[in-house]
Amino acid sequence: MSHQESLTSYIAAFVSELYKNGVEDVVVSPGSRSTPMAMIIHEHPELRVHIHVDERSAAFFALGIAKATKRPVAILCTSGTAAANYFPAIVEAKIARVPLLVLTADRPHELRDVGAPQAIDQIHLYGNHVKWFVEMAPPEKSEEMIRYARTVCARAASTALSSPAGPVHLNFPFREPLIPQLDRADLFEMNERSKGYVKIQAGELALNVEQYKEMAESMHAYKRGIIVCGAIETDGFAEAVTSLAKKLGFPILADPLSQLRSGKHDGSHIIDTYDTFLKNEEAKKFLKPNLIIRFGALPVSKPLTIFLKENHDVRQFVVDGGGGWRDPGMISSEMIYCHETHLCESIEVFVEQVNDSSFFEKWDEINQLTRKSLAEINELAVLSEGKLFYQLADQLPEGATLFVGNSMPIRDLDTFFHFNDKSIRIMANRGANGIDGTISTALGAGTCLQPLYLVLGDLTFFHDLNGLIAAKQYGIDIHILLINNNGGGIFSFLPQASHPKNFESLFGTPLDLEFEHAVKMYGGQYELISDWDHFSKVLAGENSGLTVMEIKTNRNRNIAEHRERWDAVSREISRLLEEKH
Amino acid sequence: MSHQESLTSYIAAFVSELYKNGVEDVVVSPGSRSTPMAMIIHEHPELRVHIHVDERSAAFFALGIAKATKRPVAILCTSGTAAANYFPAIVEAKIARVPLLVLTADRPHELRDVGAPQAIDQIHLYGNHVKWFVEMAPPEKSEEMIRYARTVCARAASTALSSPAGPVHLNFPFREPLIPQLDRADLFEMNERSKGYVKIQAGELALNVEQYKEMAESMHAYKRGIIVCGAIETDGFAEAVTSLAKKLGFPILADPLSQLRSGKHDGSHIIDTYDTFLKNEEAKKFLKPNLIIRFGALPVSKPLTIFLKENHDVRQFVVDGGGGWRDPGMISSEMIYCHETHLCESIEVFVEQVNDSSFFEKWDEINQLTRKSLAEINELAVLSEGKLFYQLADQLPEGATLFVGNSMPIRDLDTFFHFNDKSIRIMANRGANGIDGTISTALGAGTCLQPLYLVLGDLTFFHDLNGLIAAKQYGIDIHILLINNNGGGIFSFLPQASHPKNFESLFGTPLDLEFEHAVKMYGGQYELISDWDHFSKVLAGENSGLTVMEIKTNRNRNIAEHRERWDAVSREISRLLEEKH
Repeated sequence: MSHQESLTSYIAAFVSELYKNGVEDVVVSPGSRSTPMAMIIHEHPELRVHIHVDERSAAFFALGIAKATKRPVAILCTSGTAAANYFPAIVEAKIARVPLLVLTADRPHELRDVGAPQAIDQIHLYGNHVKWFVEMAPPEKSEEMIRYARTVCARAASTALSSPAGPVHLNFPFREPLIPQLDRADLFEMNERSKGYVKIQAGELALNVEQYKEMAESMHAYKRGIIVCGAIETDGFAEAVTSLAKKLGFPILADPLSQLRSGKHDGSHIIDTYDTFLKNEEAKKFLKPNLIIRFGALPVSKPLTIFLKENHDVRQFVVDGGGGWRDPGMISSEMIYCHETHLCESIEVFVEQVNDSSFFEKWDEINQLTRKSLAEINELAVLSEGKLFYQLADQLPEGATLFVGNSMPIRDLDTFFHFNDKSIRIMANRGANGIDGTISTALGAGTCLQPLYLVLGDLTFFHDLNGLIAAKQYGIDIHILLINNNGGGIFSFLPQASHPKNFESLFGTPLDLEFEHAVKMYGGQYELISDWDHFSKVLAGENSGLTVMEIKTNRNRNIAEHRERWDAVSREISRLLEEKH
Repeated sequence: MSHQESLTSYIAAFVSELYKNGVEDVVVSPGSRSTPMAMIIHEHPELRVHIHVDERSAAFFALGIAKATKRPVAILCTSGTAAANYFPAIVEAKIARVPLLVLTADRPHELRDVGAPQAIDQIHLYGNHVKWFVEMAPPEKSEEMIRYARTVCARAASTALSSPAGPVHLNFPFREPLIPQLDRADLFEMNERSKGYVKIQAGELALNVEQYKEMAESMHAYKRGIIVCGAIETDGFAEAVTSLAKKLGFPILADPLSQLRSGKHDGSHIIDTYDTFLKNEEAKKFLKPNLIIRFGALPVSKPLTIFLKENHDVRQFVVDGGGGWRDPGMISSEMIYCHETHLCESIEVFVEQVNDSSFFEKWDEINQLTRKSLAEINELAVLSEGKLFYQLADQLPEGATLFVGNSMPIRDLDTFFHFNDKSIRIMANRGANGIDGTISTALGAGTCLQPLYLVLGDLTFFHDLNGLIAAKQYGIDIHILLINNNGGGIFSFLPQASHPKNFESLFGTPLDLEFEHAVKMYGGQYELISDWDHFSKVLAGENSGLTVMEIKTNRNRNIAEHRERWDAVSREISRLLEEKH
């Protein structure tokens, strides 16, 4: 049997199994060592192949597709530093729980650690930032090894997808010659178990009925419970948690990434302005809970984090279907490892509708007041970062996806994007909160979620400028709202800002770039937004492809605007609470 | 003692020691968690701080400074994926043996693996791709811990620098508040051992006199020895090896990165066209050696690699002062771990001038013939990738640095850049041979090496486009020769090219970008080279800052030109050797 026949059969078996195990998209970065895998993947009639020269952006692009589809997405690159460029997206995928299959080509064993070109140590290259690592056996065509290739593929896809989802790394040693036999008609036909070699049914974490019942009783016993929802994408969760909250009479503090701020679910118990009103000490006393139930990742809001920590004396349930430990404040009193939707639905069976809604009404009253006061940002005539998010909640079309950059945009979204009943999916890279790879992740999501809007700052835009090539190459429609305050706006909100001596050089870091040039290079339409009418007009425009709307703002004015709004809200809350006493 | 006082004293002790241990440059990427280190480094009166927003480019920029200066360069970033972006440059630094001090800020212990923002597992983040990893103790001001900070710094710098040089990773856990006390006059004054805490004298590998004598005798015994020099930057090596070769009558096959192709050393025994003539079977027989002595990394040339492997029956010395194993062909018969310059000088003492130079003359004759034939590429009127390197050898000014991209440029340089007595330093990222980070590495080198020329292809240019920001921000003078053949030119030389079905999409990967836009965004001067006169004029121009000369070529014509030249040389060699018999 020839080397090429072995190579072809082994890799074709693996690739065939990829599709049978739910992989539909593969992001390939060009290279030589990866040739057998690239060519065979390209031959597969169903797999969608996306080519991306910059591996860093490629991996984030795959991350975006996987986040959007909740299916494992494969990435493939050649040996050497190419694979090292995947690292940032892999780290993000691990923490954000996104299923990725990382396929790296490698030199065969005899060319490792002997000074051969493009050979680096790829064994456990990503350390414990992947869920599973396999050094694949060299290609062979025996029945045994075909079963091996197929089984490992099925396990890898299942491992990537099972809760908590995450990246899996398979390293393939390939010997020359690297060209597979593509003229075989039966390339992907598997004689044995043609529908897939092994079907894996991975259950979700669940408690037993007694435990649900006990929890329901506990919740009833406390009249002043609050539910806090951080980033979570569990199917059916929005309906389940809002229904439970209503029955219990508990407010839901809904993070922008909880998918609770927009949608067709019941919004009556959603609290969406806590980031502002929990800055007020009197409000915090007025709203003190005696039970806290948390779902999802840590919320974006720092005032909320502080509020939770200040209530360390209160019983706190932390629910995590992924079995993690999401409690930096060390304030959880009970860790509940259970599928979140399942938990809400199972508890609700044992919960009766409460009569006394006075605690919820307190939260609702403060929330209404804050919403109203924050809405005054709309009166600003100048282009303002805060008003932008208010306008987005208003103007985005039904079914839109809004991808938000880290640093300031996600925080402004938290402050100014309030509940609405449009089905707007809000996405961000909040695993490790990096500013890297944002454009690519959004564009990856854009291959299946449309219409797509991306709001990000200039440093974030710059960091992943290369990512724009995907918009050009694949004609992905995207509206990018580039908030250009020429530097790191978030640092103006931190203590560093009071050290003017080295602030601009170390933290402000203005880039002084005219991004219009880059947009033109990538064949996009560029609009320098002049005023709010212009903003609305371009936002509503039927542009296809890449549209970049640049909104130039001022870091100093921005912080003044924010402080002014927050202070106004705080004064109104204090006045209201004074009246009550 | 306050937290801030501890933080300040501990970090100032560390930073003070950085400078005392030879670090002069620090590349800082902005972030919050790294604030104490960034602010204190910025305060240091002698350290040069370079700010770079994109950590991937930042690390390569530091790599370039370290390659150019042979001093350890520190890089600093915040916690999270920022640190993961350093990975490609770290992998390159490890294999290319470049001293880097990687300083990452981290969350303190209580905020790890508990879902805190921007917290990833940074312990051994880069695996065995660094020479040493230290999880630093949390800041403390006791005498003991100040000594600790100073000692670790000295060890880290020494470890990074000692042969084989490489990257070292120190991870610093920082608790809030993060602002140090900068108003202290004595920030960097160390009471104890003010000139540096511990001086480390790291010896180089050396054999004993008997061993040198034996080697000299061995070399004398073989009349048909060849010396092969790959990438090597050891001080004094060019003089030492050329002097030894002359005495032994051995030809030196000098890789472009051996620093032997240009310079004031004796060029009489330098063979510089072997990449072309070792494609000819008759030449290989005619030139068969009975002893091979190798220095430095593996040569770029594939024909040379094959030639070495075909001579597996011949005694082969592989000399490595870094004690590595550089022998992918498994053909070395003796591994000699000894400082290369020292070895040459020590052996030469025991070597007498040979009388019979007939073996060297054979190599010289074929080399002269090949040089002459390759020079005919100069007759091409069209813009050609090969001729470009011929022209560079001719036109680059004395003392220039030529940085070369991987993939085709380094190979074309190997073929067409012949010996000259200008002191031209040739640089490339040949550790892992990646196309990533090339612009940044060159610009880093450009902070101390001028005038600077960078030749690279369009995919390599694209991969590190963000790196250009350093040219703009720091006004670094650089001539970039961008060879744009719209895609991956090297693949046309590989077997993949005979599979037209998916060649363009998987390997050709045209980007169709007008790079002029990017050059403008970074404030550079752009020139689309129209012909050779235009090329010479712009190359000789006194432009300051960034100048990009784009040379549009054609991948198919390029391979035809190469093959035509190689075939012509081969015919001439065959004719010559026929005449001899």
